[in-house]
Amino acid sequence: MEQTKCHTVNKKQLIASIAKEKKIHPTQVRQVIQSFLDQLTECLSHGDRLEFRDFGVFEVVRRKQKIGRNPKNASVPIIIPERNIVKFTPSKRMRTIIDRVVQPESV
Amino acid sequence: MEQTKCHTVNKKQLIASIAKEKKIHPTQVRQVIQSFLDQLTECLSHGDRLEFRDFGVFEVVRRKQKIGRNPKNASVPIIIPERNIVKFTPSKRMRTIIDRVVQPESV
Repeated sequence: MEQTKCHTVNKKQLIASIAKEKKIHPTQVRQVIQSFLDQLTECLSHGDRLEFRDFGVFEVVRRKQKIGRNPKNASVPIIIPERNIVKFTPSKRMRTIIDRVVQPESV
Repeated sequence: MEQTKCHTVNKKQLIASIAKEKKIHPTQVRQVIQSFLDQLTECLSHGDRLEFRDFGVFEVVRRKQKIGRNPKNASVPIIIPERNIVKFTPSKRMRTIIDRVVQPESV
């Protein structure tokens, strides 16, 4: 990436950067990236698991009902119903890289 | 995707499918996808947030220390140290699609 400080990066910026790096026309890059994201969504919608070496795994898992709390009004419990979620598990390589990131927002 | 039942889909399969759909040489598709995944990792390593419309958001967040349990030996608590994680938040469109997936594995 060319930016030294890019807080939020979007598809358009990544496409421009890939086109420049790989010397491929931005239109083709856009087609490939869009198709990639669409097919990923499509696979997940069939309940498939997607595995990208050195990146991570995407899968759909069922999250059981749980009781949450509104942080502004902790006395009132909120029932979060059972639902499907997309679970992303980073690869070992990604985890090692991510571990070096200093002071991201705490959750 | 051509497969009607593809349980685990990998990069190679997605590349072949995109190349066919978009009529772009698989080598170029591979370059674009690899560059996309590499730059995504690179951005996350700088603490950046990545936002893809209709797909979702990737970001690095700090997870506080927590006490876990070994499901096979629940009496022994396991301390999971404070660490960075990659958080993927699916878009509203993705959530709607995912909600229709029937009986994925429960967590």
